Amino acid sequence: MALLIASSSRADLFAEAARACDGDLDVRVAPDIGRREDVTCALVWQPPQGLLKGLPNLRLIISIGAGVDSLLADPTLPDVPLVRFVDPDLTGRMAEYVALHVLFHHRRMTEFRELQSRKVWKYLPEPAAHEVRVGIMGLGVLGTAAASALGAFGYRLRGWARTPKSVAGVSSFCGADGLDAFLAETDILAVLLPLTPATRGILDRKLFSRLSQQGRDARLPGPALINAGRGGLQIDTDIAAALDAGDLYAASLDVFEAEPLPATSPLWSHPRVVVTPHNAAESAPSAIVRYALRQMQRQRCGEPLENLVDIRRGY
Amino acid sequence: MALLIASSSRADLFAEAARACDGDLDVRVAPDIGRREDVTCALVWQPPQGLLKGLPNLRLIISIGAGVDSLLADPTLPDVPLVRFVDPDLTGRMAEYVALHVLFHHRRMTEFRELQSRKVWKYLPEPAAHEVRVGIMGLGVLGTAAASALGAFGYRLRGWARTPKSVAGVSSFCGADGLDAFLAETDILAVLLPLTPATRGILDRKLFSRLSQQGRDARLPGPALINAGRGGLQIDTDIAAALDAGDLYAASLDVFEAEPLPATSPLWSHPRVVVTPHNAAESAPSAIVRYALRQMQRQRCGEPLENLVDIRRGY
Repeated sequence: MALLIASSSRADLFAEAARACDGDLDVRVAPDIGRREDVTCALVWQPPQGLLKGLPNLRLIISIGAGVDSLLADPTLPDVPLVRFVDPDLTGRMAEYVALHVLFHHRRMTEFRELQSRKVWKYLPEPAAHEVRVGIMGLGVLGTAAASALGAFGYRLRGWARTPKSVAGVSSFCGADGLDAFLAETDILAVLLPLTPATRGILDRKLFSRLSQQGRDARLPGPALINAGRGGLQIDTDIAAALDAGDLYAASLDVFEAEPLPATSPLWSHPRVVVTPHNAAESAPSAIVRYALRQMQRQRCGEPLENLVDIRRGY
Repeated sequence: MALLIASSSRADLFAEAARACDGDLDVRVAPDIGRREDVTCALVWQPPQGLLKGLPNLRLIISIGAGVDSLLADPTLPDVPLVRFVDPDLTGRMAEYVALHVLFHHRRMTEFRELQSRKVWKYLPEPAAHEVRVGIMGLGVLGTAAASALGAFGYRLRGWARTPKSVAGVSSFCGADGLDAFLAETDILAVLLPLTPATRGILDRKLFSRLSQQGRDARLPGPALINAGRGGLQIDTDIAAALDAGDLYAASLDVFEAEPLPATSPLWSHPRVVVTPHNAAESAPSAIVRYALRQMQRQRCGEPLENLVDIRRGY
């Protein structure tokens, strides 16, 4: 019985944390797998395609990322339970990221930053939080945590998801039919959707053009986009075009179609774009490993796994 | 019975809001005071020294700002009740500002901003909120509101005030004796003190050098300062010197010794300083006017005034 760690980043940190957490645990780090028959659980982030298929006694896969789209793109993925990492450390960090960037755009910080660069002291009116409509796309564990953090400030919250959801303090919309009404009343759009065939490329010119333009008449200069979900949800060039056309006023982007973001991308140097390097919710290795060991324990004891992925649904 | 508005900024907006709120109210805007005997209440922000003394029937002064230091500096200030504006609109905006800038420094945004300017995609480790110690100087209505907003994210909160205070979730320190212990365990310092003879210039080189330097060994690069209180609390040149010396890593400053901040100040162009134009809590005129009318009503009915200033204490 061994735990295999197969991660394109921080693999050694995960192994160290696992050994610190349980000294008796047999921990292997890919590609040094040793006897493949020993591996019963794999803790993974972007493992090479086919790696997991070669483990005959594998009975649990744990995704280090909350998004499992790249794993599901592997046609050789073994048919064993797949759970994704979601815990208070992850949800807390994601709620921080969303709150930080909603506050940043609500409080007109891209404008103040530009004024500061010219040493101009200028008052800009700002709406109260209850006058700002924040729309959250994706109402799972992360979207719900973000809504809770934002609700404490008094923002008017609305949410959109594939299927109807009920989240305290959030006006919910769902499906393709609900999208227009949702967007038309959104000043700041925060995206926490999973990447599936249905959501790939959903953040495009057409969607941005349907966002509320009321901000221009009120005390916000225009809609802002925050994407802390997956890069595949967005069309990078459409974001740049929407910013230039004024359909979007500003953006905070943690994810991109290609990562690292290529130096040729105009998003790097746009004055009203904040680029962060996919760090919205980079959990501590110790938190991830504790979660993994708990799932292994639950499986051994026949208890239900947490955050089990519905393979067909894609998240 | 007339309400006089004497404000160095937005006076017309306050008058408009007052008339909209109570069509029967006799509203005057300085310097067009008319018959001075009519004025019974003054709603003021930085009125010219001596103006209020010339109003023989004045019985209430309402300060538009939460800080009354400039009013108290007028030796001719009439001896009538002075109340300062504090309401949910003000406290909400202040809590937003403090939360935004604590999140900004906790989430290493000055570093990510610098990396973005060079188109560098680089992972930086970030502590969880419960590993970050936020120290709040000033535990009045505003400090308490900020603590509540920050507590929701899980920050470790400590507070300092002139006298002992008890605020839920905050480890409290007080007086000159408690300052060292408070500073030694503070990673991010948020200042919401009133300006009094005892607090003038308190944010100096000596104070910054006593802040926790643990951040350097942990996952924050060094202490950050947020001043959303009063400019007179700080020595601008000491902030610049502390940043250069490394005693401070970064700062978000809404107030300055002289406002507008002179173009010659090095704070404008420091890469790790965020300058905002004294807008941390710029309340809507309607909220301020509603508050003023409520105080007038309370005084008429013999009810206690809200946020009555203790002239001797200075806030």
